[in-house]
Amino acid sequence: MRYFVTGGAGFIGSNLVDRLLADGHSVTAYDNLSTGLLPFLDDAHKAGDRFKLVEGDLLDDKRLAGAIAGHDFVFHMAANADVRFGTDHPRRDLEQNTIVTYNVLETMRHAKINQIAFASTGSIYGECPVVPTPEDAPFPVQTSLYGASKLAGEGLIAAYCSGFNYRAFIFRFVSILGERYTHGHVFDFYQQLAEHPDRIRVLGNGKQRKSYLYIQDCIDAIFTVIAKSPAAVNIYNLGTDEYCEVNDSIGWICNRMNVTPTREYTGGDRGWIGDNPFIFLETRKVRSLGWKPKLTIQQGIMKTVEYLAANPWVFEKRK
Amino acid sequence: MRYFVTGGAGFIGSNLVDRLLADGHSVTAYDNLSTGLLPFLDDAHKAGDRFKLVEGDLLDDKRLAGAIAGHDFVFHMAANADVRFGTDHPRRDLEQNTIVTYNVLETMRHAKINQIAFASTGSIYGECPVVPTPEDAPFPVQTSLYGASKLAGEGLIAAYCSGFNYRAFIFRFVSILGERYTHGHVFDFYQQLAEHPDRIRVLGNGKQRKSYLYIQDCIDAIFTVIAKSPAAVNIYNLGTDEYCEVNDSIGWICNRMNVTPTREYTGGDRGWIGDNPFIFLETRKVRSLGWKPKLTIQQGIMKTVEYLAANPWVFEKRK
Repeated sequence: MRYFVTGGAGFIGSNLVDRLLADGHSVTAYDNLSTGLLPFLDDAHKAGDRFKLVEGDLLDDKRLAGAIAGHDFVFHMAANADVRFGTDHPRRDLEQNTIVTYNVLETMRHAKINQIAFASTGSIYGECPVVPTPEDAPFPVQTSLYGASKLAGEGLIAAYCSGFNYRAFIFRFVSILGERYTHGHVFDFYQQLAEHPDRIRVLGNGKQRKSYLYIQDCIDAIFTVIAKSPAAVNIYNLGTDEYCEVNDSIGWICNRMNVTPTREYTGGDRGWIGDNPFIFLETRKVRSLGWKPKLTIQQGIMKTVEYLAANPWVFEKRK
Repeated sequence: MRYFVTGGAGFIGSNLVDRLLADGHSVTAYDNLSTGLLPFLDDAHKAGDRFKLVEGDLLDDKRLAGAIAGHDFVFHMAANADVRFGTDHPRRDLEQNTIVTYNVLETMRHAKINQIAFASTGSIYGECPVVPTPEDAPFPVQTSLYGASKLAGEGLIAAYCSGFNYRAFIFRFVSILGERYTHGHVFDFYQQLAEHPDRIRVLGNGKQRKSYLYIQDCIDAIFTVIAKSPAAVNIYNLGTDEYCEVNDSIGWICNRMNVTPTREYTGGDRGWIGDNPFIFLETRKVRSLGWKPKLTIQQGIMKTVEYLAANPWVFEKRK
């Protein structure tokens, strides 16, 4: 199969590229390198002719159309994943997550490709009254521009399935972490403690309950769903069956780094506007296909800290 | 109060403008006249200085910013309401319903206006397994580009409420009809029978079950909700507590026009791709505020036929 991976130089995208290549497929990664990092594709380049990187922006319809032609399946993983700073630049989520998804769908249509997998998010549930939150939770009310932009992306994809006979796999992720993880809670905490081991600043009261999933478990789940889920529109939560407090994850990171910082809390039960104090997705649906995560949240965080400790260069790139 | 009504020369918009003026308010209608009709504002102009029409497109940020400044409340009624032909021009729904809603929200932010009412649609429920469909129905799967684009608009508005302290009133309409109604089932049927009283072409099998609400009842409901619903994000279905078959409405129209056409069905349980064979919204929430419709569906259809019979010019404009 010939796969096209948008955001192919990103955290999840590049891990997906490696897996597809390991399985013998041909892969084109499409990335504007706004947050993607070229070294994440060092392994991919070893596959020779089976791998190609196209540097391009998804808002550039022409470049996208030229690159996407001839593929069988699109993994649309490119996104602005900056949940926290949405209100600083509201247009970014609209452009990078909604309009770009439309561009991908339209370009696919002209190239006669009709299979797509989409990186959505548990954030689209807003602050759901049902926890753990299932895929058919009550109609959500958005609390972040990021969630709203991904909800719009999901809606477009489902409408294309109905209108143009696409087949879609929509994944609502909890926070994913592991190798090549370069933004979010654990990254921020590690970075702070590497710079000043004696103190750590925590947004909110640290009691926010969050879920995380290890990247390799996430990719296993994606391929399980694609292999076993036959509907036109296939929507799956991806997460573990546990959650932890932000304070727990800080404790684990501190233990691993052997530091005992003073914790400075900014206060309140939310880290930022739109921060959901309790994210925990119901994952019975994906488990019913036989998948389960191999790593616990704590093990996933340990893998992440080990990766960050072994790859200090990612902090240079993120400055 | 100073109200700004997008789509103010349209069917629902112009009726809303008239009501606001009758209640003594100042109103600016903003419309690009792509489907709005100037004669719909003949009554409004009688209000003199209290009414102003600005011809402009919502994609024209600058013109919009100039027009919106100084208002207290925005009714965002402009839309591409062409559910049926979405797949002929997928970009239209994205632009006219999603991007434009973003433009309205952003322009409001810069003008320090934070109250908005939004014309959404029952189409965003897709083909909901729960009928009558309540506001907190299970997480919907979109079946039309129109529904997807309105869902995206709703999401943006809710995110602005959370991120920028807006207050919003989101109305999920069934089909609205009555004076100035110029597209949809009843319009098409009337137009056909006026042209050739001996036959009528019906998309699908005519057994699709639809809901309609009379425009004046709709506007009563909108003002009831705005007066009595104190949350930041207020979401209400608007409809009657009945539905009818397409065949019923054809029968009523034929009776009123005194014609007995042969009915030609295109067949199938859907009139077009994404047509929902059963639309019936739960309206307990809005009724709990004391509102109820004054007209039945049949009475609303009669009012519509009478309007169309008295205003043959609208068919000229729609050609």
